[in-house]
Amino acid sequence: MFRVNEDYLKLPGSYLFSTIAKKVSAFSTENPDRKIIRLGIGDVTQPLCPAVIKALHSAVDEMADASTFKGYAPDLGYDFLRNTIAQEDYKSRGCDIAADEIFVSDGAKSDSGNIQEIFSKDTRIAVCDPVYPVYVDTNVMAGRTGTYDSTTGLWSNVIYMPCTAENGFSPEFPKEVPDLIYLCYPNNPTGASITKDELQKWVDYANKNGSVIVYDAAYEAYISEENVPHSIYECEGARTCAIEIRSFSKNAGFTGTRLGFTVIPKDIKTADGVTLHQLWARRHGTKFNGAPYIVQKAGEAVYSAEGKAETKSQIAYYMNNAKYIYDGLKAAGYSVYGGVNAPYIWLKTPNNMTSWEFFDFLLDKANVVGTPGSGFGPSGEGYFRLTAFGSYENTVEAIDRIKAI
Amino acid sequence: MFRVNEDYLKLPGSYLFSTIAKKVSAFSTENPDRKIIRLGIGDVTQPLCPAVIKALHSAVDEMADASTFKGYAPDLGYDFLRNTIAQEDYKSRGCDIAADEIFVSDGAKSDSGNIQEIFSKDTRIAVCDPVYPVYVDTNVMAGRTGTYDSTTGLWSNVIYMPCTAENGFSPEFPKEVPDLIYLCYPNNPTGASITKDELQKWVDYANKNGSVIVYDAAYEAYISEENVPHSIYECEGARTCAIEIRSFSKNAGFTGTRLGFTVIPKDIKTADGVTLHQLWARRHGTKFNGAPYIVQKAGEAVYSAEGKAETKSQIAYYMNNAKYIYDGLKAAGYSVYGGVNAPYIWLKTPNNMTSWEFFDFLLDKANVVGTPGSGFGPSGEGYFRLTAFGSYENTVEAIDRIKAI
Repeated sequence: MFRVNEDYLKLPGSYLFSTIAKKVSAFSTENPDRKIIRLGIGDVTQPLCPAVIKALHSAVDEMADASTFKGYAPDLGYDFLRNTIAQEDYKSRGCDIAADEIFVSDGAKSDSGNIQEIFSKDTRIAVCDPVYPVYVDTNVMAGRTGTYDSTTGLWSNVIYMPCTAENGFSPEFPKEVPDLIYLCYPNNPTGASITKDELQKWVDYANKNGSVIVYDAAYEAYISEENVPHSIYECEGARTCAIEIRSFSKNAGFTGTRLGFTVIPKDIKTADGVTLHQLWARRHGTKFNGAPYIVQKAGEAVYSAEGKAETKSQIAYYMNNAKYIYDGLKAAGYSVYGGVNAPYIWLKTPNNMTSWEFFDFLLDKANVVGTPGSGFGPSGEGYFRLTAFGSYENTVEAIDRIKAI
Repeated sequence: MFRVNEDYLKLPGSYLFSTIAKKVSAFSTENPDRKIIRLGIGDVTQPLCPAVIKALHSAVDEMADASTFKGYAPDLGYDFLRNTIAQEDYKSRGCDIAADEIFVSDGAKSDSGNIQEIFSKDTRIAVCDPVYPVYVDTNVMAGRTGTYDSTTGLWSNVIYMPCTAENGFSPEFPKEVPDLIYLCYPNNPTGASITKDELQKWVDYANKNGSVIVYDAAYEAYISEENVPHSIYECEGARTCAIEIRSFSKNAGFTGTRLGFTVIPKDIKTADGVTLHQLWARRHGTKFNGAPYIVQKAGEAVYSAEGKAETKSQIAYYMNNAKYIYDGLKAAGYSVYGGVNAPYIWLKTPNNMTSWEFFDFLLDKANVVGTPGSGFGPSGEGYFRLTAFGSYENTVEAIDRIKAI
């Protein structure tokens, strides 16, 4: 008789955003006349920019002709894209990353979920709390997290690094040394950023202890301040300890187009000389068949002169929303964080409401959907996330409604 | 100090097609004047059909306008595609499969590689020998296969079902009952097909023993004979024991466009009532963010009247190649199999050459690239696979060259 992966059954409830979707759907059915504004899931609303649209049409035309048709892509990505990324995202910032250290994928969610596979089953992971649920959930599914305490909301075999207003949403080094450290900057969900000096300390810590950092930089395009690193490879020594995950979702609106990449320098290796690079290459070659050609061409166009200008103005549009949310909530008396180097605004719920109480309150009173902070981990309790990815009009209306209640 | 997944290190050598690519690249560098014809990897060469191209352009235009732009797709696929698949691939054949039992993905390789994740670590798997390497390799990476014997080419914890000319490439029921049985029909690599009556026996066997069948039907569009089932759900009782994996790669030329789906009926459940459907939904929701909207629209177009007619003629084109290969090699004295309900021709190597000897021989003498049968498992030794996916001109030239040596 077949048996299932029992570790899957340990996961409490369903995936955060599925739960939200169900709640909103139920509310919407009961209140068909209310106009709901969604500032919950971090999904973009602005269309793909003209340079990307042009590249897509052109690539589609190539697929229509046998002489230019493309079958299976190279497992690890087309050279035209890997070379462009290496130049534009790394070499131009003084980061020593080669094209063949870049693995093109269908997005940062897949990569951040799958990366744990190349580590041993007994790997001790450390995560910020609150945290993007995918890091923890995928380790649960792999049987790496021990047991779940439904009272505390904590897993017995996970090292948590609380990030709250008290420590400025900046985690301290854990007391117990982890094997694998997930860091996300600019941060989802808190919107916090990290300075280069602070990040250098994490790199030094990892190198000293033989830990690996999985650095999720999906939101780097939203950095507006100086001295906030766009890549962990701006820090010295990161080539021996850091994996970086990037996405086209938020900098170019690819949430529904699907493209991302992971960087694994060849210098991260075990005492026996096994490189994480070779293991990830093997995983890609065995379980993945490349991102679509047309989508990789679209990704390349993001780096063209037009693509850069157009995506920059799209990011400015969202960051203008962020500012409106931040300023509006602040004026209304909320304690507000983030929103300067990130498209996320993190706020303290008023009147000691729990995160889900505030979710229901906001949905009911303002018909605005946000994300409960507790959905990202126990230290997120009492906080709430709003995103800047709505349209400007909806963002203004949402904040005005919140201010009115 | 971080530790890696040691199971990855058990994999002997690199992925079959990567090895072939390296050999061909080396030969090509040494012999720049030779025109190499590739009938090795199963990659298509004909362009996407006009109906698909039209749908792609139209979907790209939608992505250019905020009012029609699509962000994150539903995790499990857009309803427009799931409904179409349920109707066209299943209901129209009398198969009882609902739209919400269809999980849209980026392709059959990912799905057939990832499906093992929802089963327990101690799951006993059975595979045909020879077999598509992904089934075994992904179980190796999950630590399920025991130790590798480099002399026999067998894993200690895998149940092999030899398929050779002696048994008509039709496996017998294994002596030891497996938990999970991988079947692929029409078969890659042997090109063999299965009748409905024979497949019914496997369904009955699985139901009797509490086994699950992973049925890879990626090549169903190539079936030309009556009484060869297009889906395992044509068999009675398959809803309680069978997962089916499908692909748009070979029926519509999507190898570089990436789209597939997996069907998991809700009736496959453990004694405790846990369904494989819920586990796979959880996996999709946690580790995957949907196939691109534009690609799902392209997939929908495959089922339009134009799409059906155009892809049918594309399949006829490849099957004409298959016939040319089959007839030509037969006339040249080779023992040849497959090619009638499948785009693969499986042949016995001449003069007791090993599969790799014949690979080198063919590359050197005819500058034709095929796939060594032994790359698919020990029972593939002494066999060789050619695919019908080349252009007609190249196929004719390749066969004429082979006949000449």
